[in-house]
Amino acid sequence: MKNGKLRIGVVGLGRAFSLMLPTFLADPRVELVAGCDPRAGARDQFSRDFSRPAYEAVEALAADPEVEVIYVASPHQFHARHTQIAADHGKHVLVEKPMALSLAECDAMIDACTQAGVHLLIGHCHSFDTPYLRTRELVQSGRFGAVRMIHALNFTDYICRPRRPEELRTEQGGGAVFSQAAHQVDIVRLLACQEPERVRSALGNWDESRPTEGAYSALMWFHGGAYAALNYNGYGHFDSDEWMGWTGEMGLPKSSEDYGAARRRLKSIAGPAEESALKNAGTYGGSAYTPPDRQAPGAARHQHFGPFVVSCEKADFRPLPDGIYVYEDDKKYLIDIEPPPVPRAEVIDELYAAVHAGQPCLHGGQWARRTLEICLAMIESSRASRDVILSGVMRHV
Amino acid sequence: MKNGKLRIGVVGLGRAFSLMLPTFLADPRVELVAGCDPRAGARDQFSRDFSRPAYEAVEALAADPEVEVIYVASPHQFHARHTQIAADHGKHVLVEKPMALSLAECDAMIDACTQAGVHLLIGHCHSFDTPYLRTRELVQSGRFGAVRMIHALNFTDYICRPRRPEELRTEQGGGAVFSQAAHQVDIVRLLACQEPERVRSALGNWDESRPTEGAYSALMWFHGGAYAALNYNGYGHFDSDEWMGWTGEMGLPKSSEDYGAARRRLKSIAGPAEESALKNAGTYGGSAYTPPDRQAPGAARHQHFGPFVVSCEKADFRPLPDGIYVYEDDKKYLIDIEPPPVPRAEVIDELYAAVHAGQPCLHGGQWARRTLEICLAMIESSRASRDVILSGVMRHV
Repeated sequence: MKNGKLRIGVVGLGRAFSLMLPTFLADPRVELVAGCDPRAGARDQFSRDFSRPAYEAVEALAADPEVEVIYVASPHQFHARHTQIAADHGKHVLVEKPMALSLAECDAMIDACTQAGVHLLIGHCHSFDTPYLRTRELVQSGRFGAVRMIHALNFTDYICRPRRPEELRTEQGGGAVFSQAAHQVDIVRLLACQEPERVRSALGNWDESRPTEGAYSALMWFHGGAYAALNYNGYGHFDSDEWMGWTGEMGLPKSSEDYGAARRRLKSIAGPAEESALKNAGTYGGSAYTPPDRQAPGAARHQHFGPFVVSCEKADFRPLPDGIYVYEDDKKYLIDIEPPPVPRAEVIDELYAAVHAGQPCLHGGQWARRTLEICLAMIESSRASRDVILSGVMRHV
Repeated sequence: MKNGKLRIGVVGLGRAFSLMLPTFLADPRVELVAGCDPRAGARDQFSRDFSRPAYEAVEALAADPEVEVIYVASPHQFHARHTQIAADHGKHVLVEKPMALSLAECDAMIDACTQAGVHLLIGHCHSFDTPYLRTRELVQSGRFGAVRMIHALNFTDYICRPRRPEELRTEQGGGAVFSQAAHQVDIVRLLACQEPERVRSALGNWDESRPTEGAYSALMWFHGGAYAALNYNGYGHFDSDEWMGWTGEMGLPKSSEDYGAARRRLKSIAGPAEESALKNAGTYGGSAYTPPDRQAPGAARHQHFGPFVVSCEKADFRPLPDGIYVYEDDKKYLIDIEPPPVPRAEVIDELYAAVHAGQPCLHGGQWARRTLEICLAMIESSRASRDVILSGVMRHV
């Protein structure tokens, strides 16, 4: 590192990058040193914004000696190949979730990074959000007995947002399981502090014009005896942020009055080509892109992924955008959590600790591979109408 | 009927009767004409309150010519035998949920009532609550497309309330599946308007001093393609009435400040004998029993069984104590429902329509048998770690 900063090169200047950009801009431990995107408009904007090179080819970015860490934020189906290229060039890798689309891809990514001696971190994922990490600490304290049941739900307008065609095809990594269960499963695992053993699921796919899963419910059983119920509905009707104090997923206040906005917008679109164009226009380098203001410290609450209830033997926990509600046998109280100084700073915390101090990643390759295994098991369970048993216990939980 | 009233004889003057008594007192279509209980104190109070006979033996009550309908509110394990006695005497039967403890018992009850030519109705169950019945009408209207997903949850202090020993033994009909899933399954079926086909469940039993299920999560699949996720936790920590506007199960305002009251009370009890005594003392005829005031019309909101979200193709519905929240594609709104004139009047509506006008019961024997089948399937699914396929399609959905 130079000046103690993580010198990050970004592969894929699309929506995932747009959502991480406030973090990169505000976190003093980060310096953006290169970008890469097939869209000339995105490259042009990157060069203007950062006075740094923007490459068309991933190999060129990976070969740039200024780049120390490569943030792989390309579409899901490219994560494995781009991670391989990064590792081949000796660069640490931060990969957006989902890690990849198959376990074979995950294995190749893990092997490539291990052989290259570089760190592999998967994120952002909402399991990085501080309220979940702090709830995990309460569970791990042992003061409240073992985790027995976790209940998770999230009702959003996920399926109504503008998409590229492959985002609406499960076999290409689209749909609520790859995109949204990737968050919820990861959080549930983090909170359970137990090895998952088996999964049973039901998938919901009921909008012919968006032919992928927009919803799911799943049961997951853990080695320590806990079970979890995961529920997601992205069809844009009831909004469970009502039960999160009208704080949205990104930690910002949400108006309950702006009802149906995503669907209204979608209805005004003529077809898939226009929809892709709309999505591109709204992301970095696009004509309708709005750059983030530098977020003022304390302006937002923590990000979240809907209501969770973690039931231990002696207490329930509810992680919230501004704290953790604890329901013990004889009293209930809110543990305040200070607002995030920088959104998603937890990703940089973990990346920095790995690269700077050699600390093992919680959200490393083995961890994220298991989350993908569970997502794939959810798809298989619904298809085959039976439980799917997960593979042997992994090492790094 | 005399004077157009249902002349009801009550078998079992315990807690279930206590909860129905406000209805019997306030509904002008009901006349209580006889009681029956093994406890002398309960019989004495019934005689004093109603100047009507109170019998020790069920056969004696059944033989009373004044009795037209027998309300079987005895403990679960006696429902089948008491229904048989009622039918043998040619009396219509209203049985508390759960209908019985085995399908063989249900079959015998249905056969007995069919052969005797009497009506068999199972309730009260929260599936009688008007907001669920009205939501079912919205689903049946077809205006919103097919039901695709139902999500139900309820976090209560069920397991902490005073219990008789058998209420804490699953094999004797105790625990959250027999007592609480009996409500939730019934409501989900009512809202789905489709035949249930298979069930997968996880049961939670984690308090050694209360060795029965206090929690469960289950997935249920329906013939029409819908699925439902049912979730219950009765271990007395988080209270999901927070998401019902702090209206309690009985439709009355609930203080969020009276936290942990059931567990505090339980902790002050020396053992099972004292706990049974405490339960008895608080029910009808007991030393600590408080008679219900006649409920003023409009004083309460509707009863409920926790938050439900019914997702149809074109709208989500949330039945609430005072209405139904409808989330359509382009707008959301509350359909107001007038307060109940009499609590649980819906039970009398259905009973009256059957006895007075010969109308078939929605909550009849076949219907309730199927709900018990699902509850038993939940127990079996968790034990065997697999889906349980339900028996062939019933006739009377």
